[in-house]
Amino acid sequence: MTSVYCLVVCSCPDEETAGVLAEGLVEGRLAACVNIVSGVRSVYRWQGVLEKSAECLLFAKTRASRQVELQTWLRARHPYELPEIIAIPIQSGLPEYLEWVGTCVTP
Amino acid sequence: MTSVYCLVVCSCPDEETAGVLAEGLVEGRLAACVNIVSGVRSVYRWQGVLEKSAECLLFAKTRASRQVELQTWLRARHPYELPEIIAIPIQSGLPEYLEWVGTCVTP
Amino acid sequence: MTSVYCLVVCSCPDEETAGVLAEGLVEGRLAACVNIVSGVRSVYRWQGVLEKSAECLLFAKTRASRQVELQTWLRARHPYELPEIIAIPIQSGLPEYLEWVGTCVTP
Repeated sequence: MTSVYCLVVCSCPDEETAGVLAEGLVEGRLAACVNIVSGVRSVYRWQGVLEKSAECLLFAKTRASRQVELQTWLRARHPYELPEIIAIPIQSGLPEYLEWVGTCVTP
Repeated sequence: MTSVYCLVVCSCPDEETAGVLAEGLVEGRLAACVNIVSGVRSVYRWQGVLEKSAECLLFAKTRASRQVELQTWLRARHPYELPEIIAIPIQSGLPEYLEWVGTCVTP
Repeated sequence: MTSVYCLVVCSCPDEETAGVLAEGLVEGRLAACVNIVSGVRSVYRWQGVLEKSAECLLFAKTRASRQVELQTWLRARHPYELPEIIAIPIQSGLPEYLEWVGTCVTP
């Protein structure tokens, strides 16, 4: 069962890219609010090699019904060949806050 | 279907506020543990204007059955007019750890 | 209903431990990617005393079907008596990214 609202997590190579993408999501009303967590170290295997990169994480709050649209928007503008874009359900929350998310990101 | 335990995420304006709220939640047995992530940049629209603020994020682990009480406690003490308080389901975890959360935060 | 993929969150005492555990999870194909968030402050009650510790958080992306195995692997190597290991459902995401997680972490 999909939640009404969700938290989309996306990793970015640097603060500048994170800032541009975050502002674009809010300006474009695809996310109500985006938190940027910097100074992240990421470990993963890419084309058989263990990679360690400095990254930033975006935490974007949106409607689940707009998540694919948000994802497509991010994908088209992200510098990575294959960006991490995952959606986590928001099970509940402060009603007035979720209402605010709902007015920022129309259905 | 709501999970038994959940992760409540709340944004705060600064480390001091984050520390006071985190300690109050643990002292008051509304959360078993609160992680404070600092140096966060947040982008959102408020009253029609694109805002960019420095914030901290709280990640509080609690029982889903006490989430509304935790939310009400936070709301009453939070300096924001409309704080971000969202609850994410904990699908599963280390049994002993979840048991510990359950003893810290009674049903 | 458990998701196919999940985000496992684990707290570590320092960056070195976080790095070793993150690399081990990816090398061992128990996680596709691990983000390490540093400079976290954690507040919790341990044996009746309110504790405040500096920690790092691991965010590991994996298959829900391998989460218990990942958890057991982490538990056996973690320096804490009782480490925080929780699993959050990934509701959806960029299909190619989730496919990549699925190739890194076989069922």
